[in-house]
Amino acid sequence: MVGVPLHPDVEALACLLGTWRGTGQAVYPTTDDFGYTEELTYSHVGKPQLAWRQSTVLDDGRPAHAEVGYLRGLADRPGEVELVLAHPAGLIEAAVGEVEVQPDGLALHLRSTAVVGTPAAKEVLSVERRITVTGDVLRYQLAMAAVGQAHQHHLAAELHRA
Amino acid sequence: MVGVPLHPDVEALACLLGTWRGTGQAVYPTTDDFGYTEELTYSHVGKPQLAWRQSTVLDDGRPAHAEVGYLRGLADRPGEVELVLAHPAGLIEAAVGEVEVQPDGLALHLRSTAVVGTPAAKEVLSVERRITVTGDVLRYQLAMAAVGQAHQHHLAAELHRA
Repeated sequence: MVGVPLHPDVEALACLLGTWRGTGQAVYPTTDDFGYTEELTYSHVGKPQLAWRQSTVLDDGRPAHAEVGYLRGLADRPGEVELVLAHPAGLIEAAVGEVEVQPDGLALHLRSTAVVGTPAAKEVLSVERRITVTGDVLRYQLAMAAVGQAHQHHLAAELHRA
Repeated sequence: MVGVPLHPDVEALACLLGTWRGTGQAVYPTTDDFGYTEELTYSHVGKPQLAWRQSTVLDDGRPAHAEVGYLRGLADRPGEVELVLAHPAGLIEAAVGEVEVQPDGLALHLRSTAVVGTPAAKEVLSVERRITVTGDVLRYQLAMAAVGQAHQHHLAAELHRA
């Protein structure tokens, strides 16, 4: 939908729009540390949400994680956002958070309100995401409580505008 | 990921792969009936899931509903599938179901195990999906319990392979 104006409810998220590529590092007590390459895309069709589409490949080239969903602006609560995501591992995630517009970007902090798995999925109890954009650089950190472990740092990545 | 072999856990879903376009009709006690045009795409990257991406536009051309997520095959339970979806309206949906392979297609029946909304979303309590593929025709029916109404028929559509 090229040319459709951005909905005012997601104006604060405008600097996310586009495609971002880069690399990240994963750590967690239950797995070996690993590196990954990521592509993250935010797009819109003129409605009060940005579509969120992410995929990673491992350092050996195999496809790894992905997630798809929507980041929602709220007409009556400027500065607040909602996130809904589905993960191929059989998880769905809903989150709330705040967006702070900064001179050359933004800071976004999202905390899950629900993470639900299908019967065959691994247990994830909480997900917390911090995203900053500074010019053409997007950095994020993700913490989670999963598979019996306390809520803790899991992912850090630095992506560049494609 | 053109050319990547389909994962055996989703072999029963192979006839879904590709893009489908057509029209549907929506009815529900709380809204006027309306028609819509839909595009539905199933794709894969060689893992035991199909990516599910759907979007509709109203008869006047405005973008309406969308949903994105994954349809999962299960190595140890052939014939059973799991679905995870995120909706821009602030809903996440997890479902389980059965796929029946037929001579010229399949029949798929999915019932939600969880539908969770963000704080600003409308309440949806259950979603049930029946999808059939016969050759190059995909038909689906969707029932739901939402906004205080009993579980009942909501959507019917007929799509054709693009």
